Amino acid sequence: MNETIRNILERRSIRAYRPEQIKDEERDIILQAAMHAPSAMGKQPWHFTVIQRKDIIDAISEGVKKAAINRNIPGLKERVLEPGFHALYAAPTAIIISGDKTSKFVYADCAAAAENILIAAQSLGIGTCFIAMTDIFFSTEEGRKFAREIGIPECYEPIYTVAVGYKACDAPQPAPRKENAVTILRQGDGSVFVAFQKNH
Amino acid sequence: MNETIRNILERRSIRAYRPEQIKDEERDIILQAAMHAPSAMGKQPWHFTVIQRKDIIDAISEGVKKAAINRNIPGLKERVLEPGFHALYAAPTAIIISGDKTSKFVYADCAAAAENILIAAQSLGIGTCFIAMTDIFFSTEEGRKFAREIGIPECYEPIYTVAVGYKACDAPQPAPRKENAVTILRQGDGSVFVAFQKNH
Repeated sequence: MNETIRNILERRSIRAYRPEQIKDEERDIILQAAMHAPSAMGKQPWHFTVIQRKDIIDAISEGVKKAAINRNIPGLKERVLEPGFHALYAAPTAIIISGDKTSKFVYADCAAAAENILIAAQSLGIGTCFIAMTDIFFSTEEGRKFAREIGIPECYEPIYTVAVGYKACDAPQPAPRKENAVTILRQGDGSVFVAFQKNH
Repeated sequence: MNETIRNILERRSIRAYRPEQIKDEERDIILQAAMHAPSAMGKQPWHFTVIQRKDIIDAISEGVKKAAINRNIPGLKERVLEPGFHALYAAPTAIIISGDKTSKFVYADCAAAAENILIAAQSLGIGTCFIAMTDIFFSTEEGRKFAREIGIPECYEPIYTVAVGYKACDAPQPAPRKENAVTILRQGDGSVFVAFQKNH
């Protein structure tokens, strides 16, 4: 197994971060990785807002909390009311990936960029967590206003957020992979439906 | 720059493949990488159909061609009628990533899995192309029937397809990255909106 595949397999969602900031050169190479994701028709329909200010990161968490309470989302409301809740795990850096929603495959493009951030960071020993939950804030009127205030260009909307920082915890064990997630159809097999492969 | 980041930056969409099949162990490690993508709430709402049969791969291309013509999609119709058109570039392997559309972030989850396939393959010297266009076939009645015939489980729908194989061409140069794709908000900066970073 090579180093790249090892990084892919060993990446975990990290939910506790040390307060010190990552290095600028680490941040910048992670952003380069993000921007080298594939995109449909090469449109690169994304914008990255890198937030390295605790006040803004905390404000996003508060926005998520308020939105979850106001919208009374079952399960989520209880979670945001837990002591110490922080939607971005108080990471020192948050990268908001915004997309041009007129671009047909913008969710795929932005998620591929997010995955590149996760893997590049892992290769540098930096923790990340892919957070989709911020959407419940950014989809509100207040959240949309906030997005403009932090400089997200007019034609882009926040789609995903990635928390980034040095890990303050060991990487958790991976959850077991789902069984029967793969069907393989091989040349020469007689029938169309051939095999389930059990994935440990 | 480490090997992982180099693989992320050097990955390109490959549109010509050698006919010989990739090795089973290459295919299986690529699938492991796919299944180790993050997913919202750890749901792993995906199914992978690995097609290594030319007849089925060609049938998908024909399905895309027919759908593009029937639906008279501007731009696309002309493209599918070009001589030698193949929606999957006649790759020896195609991986259909299907998702459980009742899972809220299924597009993100499946795209992250796709990106892992691309990067893992790149690290093995194997070419890939992330193809969203197959959707125009699989979203038809005929396409849905086809999906069942090739063993995609009932609660999953094809979302993305990845062409996989040994490269029959040099990797193309990357398109220039979009300028002004990043805003950085740094601790200690006075204003909220701080900087555009020009990305070469």
